[in-house]
Amino acid sequence: MSENKTTYLDQIDTPDDLRRLKPEELPLYSGEVREFIVRQLSSNPGHLGSSLGTVELTVALHYVFNTPHDKIVWDVGHQSYAHKILTGRRDQFATKRTLGGLSGFPVMAESIYDSFGAGHASTSISAALGMAAADDLTGEKRQVVAIIGDGSLSGGLAYEGLNNAGAMNTDLLVILNDNRMSIDKNVGAMQEYLLSITASRRYNRLKNWVWDHLGRFKWLRRQIQKTGNALKTGLLQQSNLFEALNFRYFGPVDGHNLKSLVRVLNDLKQIPGPKLLHIVTEKGHGYQPAVENPALWHAPGRFNPENGELEVDPCDTTPPMRYQDVFGYTLIELAQVNPRIVGVTPAMPSGCSLSLMMEVMPERTFDVGIAEGHAVTFSAGMAAGGLHPFCNIYSTFMQRAYDNVIHDVALQHLDVTFCLDRAGIVGEDGATHQGIFDIAAFRAIPHVTIAAPMNEVELRHLMYTSQLPGNGAFVIRYPRGRGVIRDWQQPMEAIPVGTGRLLREGTDIALLSLGPVGNFAAQAIEQAEADGISVEHIDLRFAKPLDEALLHRVGRKFRRVITVEDGVISGGVGSAVLEFMNAHGYPCEVTLLGVPDEFPEHGTPHQLHHRYGFDTEGILNAIRQLS
Amino acid sequence: MSENKTTYLDQIDTPDDLRRLKPEELPLYSGEVREFIVRQLSSNPGHLGSSLGTVELTVALHYVFNTPHDKIVWDVGHQSYAHKILTGRRDQFATKRTLGGLSGFPVMAESIYDSFGAGHASTSISAALGMAAADDLTGEKRQVVAIIGDGSLSGGLAYEGLNNAGAMNTDLLVILNDNRMSIDKNVGAMQEYLLSITASRRYNRLKNWVWDHLGRFKWLRRQIQKTGNALKTGLLQQSNLFEALNFRYFGPVDGHNLKSLVRVLNDLKQIPGPKLLHIVTEKGHGYQPAVENPALWHAPGRFNPENGELEVDPCDTTPPMRYQDVFGYTLIELAQVNPRIVGVTPAMPSGCSLSLMMEVMPERTFDVGIAEGHAVTFSAGMAAGGLHPFCNIYSTFMQRAYDNVIHDVALQHLDVTFCLDRAGIVGEDGATHQGIFDIAAFRAIPHVTIAAPMNEVELRHLMYTSQLPGNGAFVIRYPRGRGVIRDWQQPMEAIPVGTGRLLREGTDIALLSLGPVGNFAAQAIEQAEADGISVEHIDLRFAKPLDEALLHRVGRKFRRVITVEDGVISGGVGSAVLEFMNAHGYPCEVTLLGVPDEFPEHGTPHQLHHRYGFDTEGILNAIRQLS
Repeated sequence: MSENKTTYLDQIDTPDDLRRLKPEELPLYSGEVREFIVRQLSSNPGHLGSSLGTVELTVALHYVFNTPHDKIVWDVGHQSYAHKILTGRRDQFATKRTLGGLSGFPVMAESIYDSFGAGHASTSISAALGMAAADDLTGEKRQVVAIIGDGSLSGGLAYEGLNNAGAMNTDLLVILNDNRMSIDKNVGAMQEYLLSITASRRYNRLKNWVWDHLGRFKWLRRQIQKTGNALKTGLLQQSNLFEALNFRYFGPVDGHNLKSLVRVLNDLKQIPGPKLLHIVTEKGHGYQPAVENPALWHAPGRFNPENGELEVDPCDTTPPMRYQDVFGYTLIELAQVNPRIVGVTPAMPSGCSLSLMMEVMPERTFDVGIAEGHAVTFSAGMAAGGLHPFCNIYSTFMQRAYDNVIHDVALQHLDVTFCLDRAGIVGEDGATHQGIFDIAAFRAIPHVTIAAPMNEVELRHLMYTSQLPGNGAFVIRYPRGRGVIRDWQQPMEAIPVGTGRLLREGTDIALLSLGPVGNFAAQAIEQAEADGISVEHIDLRFAKPLDEALLHRVGRKFRRVITVEDGVISGGVGSAVLEFMNAHGYPCEVTLLGVPDEFPEHGTPHQLHHRYGFDTEGILNAIRQLS
Repeated sequence: MSENKTTYLDQIDTPDDLRRLKPEELPLYSGEVREFIVRQLSSNPGHLGSSLGTVELTVALHYVFNTPHDKIVWDVGHQSYAHKILTGRRDQFATKRTLGGLSGFPVMAESIYDSFGAGHASTSISAALGMAAADDLTGEKRQVVAIIGDGSLSGGLAYEGLNNAGAMNTDLLVILNDNRMSIDKNVGAMQEYLLSITASRRYNRLKNWVWDHLGRFKWLRRQIQKTGNALKTGLLQQSNLFEALNFRYFGPVDGHNLKSLVRVLNDLKQIPGPKLLHIVTEKGHGYQPAVENPALWHAPGRFNPENGELEVDPCDTTPPMRYQDVFGYTLIELAQVNPRIVGVTPAMPSGCSLSLMMEVMPERTFDVGIAEGHAVTFSAGMAAGGLHPFCNIYSTFMQRAYDNVIHDVALQHLDVTFCLDRAGIVGEDGATHQGIFDIAAFRAIPHVTIAAPMNEVELRHLMYTSQLPGNGAFVIRYPRGRGVIRDWQQPMEAIPVGTGRLLREGTDIALLSLGPVGNFAAQAIEQAEADGISVEHIDLRFAKPLDEALLHRVGRKFRRVITVEDGVISGGVGSAVLEFMNAHGYPCEVTLLGVPDEFPEHGTPHQLHHRYGFDTEGILNAIRQLS
């Protein structure tokens, strides 16, 4: 990759600039955008593969549509880097995902070109349909386009949107950005079907040409059906699945051919009603290392842009291990002993390290696609059938399955372990991804146990405990990132449900922590001791049920109490402690540390812990203020 | 309807008894079950139409399948009356939906034949798939059947289940109980398609016979597409929508012909993999008044079984009005003035009375089907497009859209009013339907306003206030049933967000209530006054943000405080008051009244309010205990 002097990149600040280019100049500009993204991400990591896959689509969309008047709605939004670069944010791009900088996702408040924010999957069709419906009522004439990946299409919300859009019959273009599959074994049947589709005469001529060039996506065949998604097979065999929902279907089109894309999009502007354009793209397109290993290069961290060598994080080779891997290895240990254990993940096998069990016990692990609600109800069904599912869902995505936990698991006393990875502040992914609402949301639900280990060994004990019969809906929340113990593979023990740990006795103040923030607290308490302040430290371990014996001890012994949690203060575990103290007439003054009533933006976890005053320094300050 | 002496009903207590009948006796038994249901429901109301529609299906399922070893999973479950009657609960059937009696829905704890509980829609396929997957692993040989209505199929969870089931390729039978549509305009295309389907040779012969007899469902044609659901059109035009998802499709079959059903189900037992049987039933089948007006007879209340005359509830003709109607009429008033207002409901237009606006402004109201997540994100899209949606969702169903409110509305500061009907204790529908978690769940979310009117006039003020620009996600919760004011149609006023009302000054105790339970509180305070206890009464009106001025007044003036809310205590508004008092160093002793940490069963709202101690008597007791 050579250090070319750019020709177009510097001159194009907005889509208006872009639209002054001649069509034949677009590939050159796209190439520069791609190179810019690669160089930027080599030092400031982010979602590389999907962003490289949508460069041409992004350029074509802004070239053909009159943005920002016309509305482009990106699903998930991690593929929107080119969109950001060509909508006035090139110069700020280096700040992406850093505190105070650009978000890694579309954000309405960040740019008028971000017509709808995202971060979670499958929302784009519903949101775009809402905009289209609004235009129908207000008389506004504009195009509304939703871009959704094939993965997001496994979310039920996407179907709900398609189903309603087909019925409303309003003008809406959904672009299916298909980067995991393109050609099934039944190529013939699909091709035959596609040949019957007409967008325009020009498009018809184009189509055969596009089809001929799809050959180079043959490598994608290998990817097909790997995650066991029936939709994929279905899509390929019966593309009229969309037509059954009253969408006109067009495609597939090579999503890296700007000439085709521009022509097709221009044609589709003229066609009323709900339309679906199926484009085929390649993750990492144009950057060979990313093409060759798309999974690794989805979000590769730092790398050398010239040769594609990944800069190995020094932490990667040294313990402590990541919590997710402790989960992954421990689950295998448990499953080897308890044949009832199965693992469930909604499309995050490597993200949550269920992939470890998948390798050794593939028949006992289930990747159900981006479908959190189904993951939970499916787990409930397996529990009703006598198994013990470990259903691993990122805390933020568990918000999608709130009712399923209530209605299908807790209410029915079914034994399911919910491992909430990425609980608490997640850092660079920002506001959409913070896992901070789970404690408050689930504390309200009867029959739910909520636990948070302070370290890896505790995580193992809790996992072991959760799979003992009769423990019902058992939530174990733990954060992104690494633990604190090198020698984590200790024998597992059953923990009596609802018991905490008295870590250190003290006399002046009681500090009750939940989860790994207890390690910050321990350091702060150490430092406070040097100041002559004696703090008793309790690791609550359970947010529900609370350890009443320990809390009575605190209530009787202390007037000054601090609670620390990596979650919202409103209704969180500190609030539960307050409810307890009030119920038993203990007149404690409680300082509640945690996330205040705002959506935390992106930044490193440390920066955000510090901002909200529950890193070691913040906790020490709270101790000093109270003493 | 004659008072026949029953021949079979009394002799059949379990499916084992049923399976001893000859096939030709099944219609006679079914007729007796139907008559039993009609007589029972005439005096003890419940879901009549859908239960009458599934009598033959229920009998056929238990006749063909080896229940309880084989698993039958009812979606929603309000159609399971015949199932309850023939699985050992006939004698208790009169207790249905009453305190301590049978639930109106399947409940695992109630019977071994209830293989999975329900109440909310669209869960059956996921749950049944979980059971089938468990059988695959444990080696258990059994049939698993999910029965799902066409309405439930609009929920994204059903698609997630189908999508995953098709991929897993395990043995699973999904029965689509289609009672709203059966034959589209495109009968020819569908018929042609159906003719190509083969279950068995016997079935093939049967099929033509069934088809011939479908003529009598022609009335259903009128129902088609009334709710604007594209799936319906799609289903009828392209039944291979299911085949695209790797399900083998069979049908349609007359769901009231026992001979056909028994044959088809026996055939399908032999066919491996995921299968979908499409049956056509008639709501209210066999009871002419219910057939003629299926909407009215969905849950008709008491009636005369002989002539189908509905027993008009005396309350129906006298004010006060139901909260839902105050919502419905007020929304029209607001929409007449504010052209940006639109109404959204997920399949509950008459349940929430959005139907009133639908009649006069059909183009500004949207019934999106059973799809709560989409209802919210679609509303967010309309808000982004400049409209102000009033999205009305029952509190319990809003649990389905928790993430959508967080991710798509609150985080983006979009102006959407969420009217949560059926908030608080709902009564006879029982544990699955109680609307008790909303305050705790939404209080944790930044930028969300939560309000609850104490009466109809306050509801109008809050609705007016919510649609003023810039108020963001604005939740208004109100209960099932009637208000307290005859002259409710007062002029609307803007209420400063986060302000309560000082209703009565007092000196001994402060009582802070939220919502209509404030009326119980007012009565209790009146009675306490007679005892010489002076209670200050504040209608909080907002659970978030709290009225800090009023709370400071309380904190300064009182040591004894009572909070009353129709929702869970854990994390509810009482907990928020505690957080406030603690944060400001007010050493108040607070008695928190509300729903304790359990799932409230079915019973009348009054019985449950009484059980949990927040009816007038319970509040008075709390006042006396504190004084």
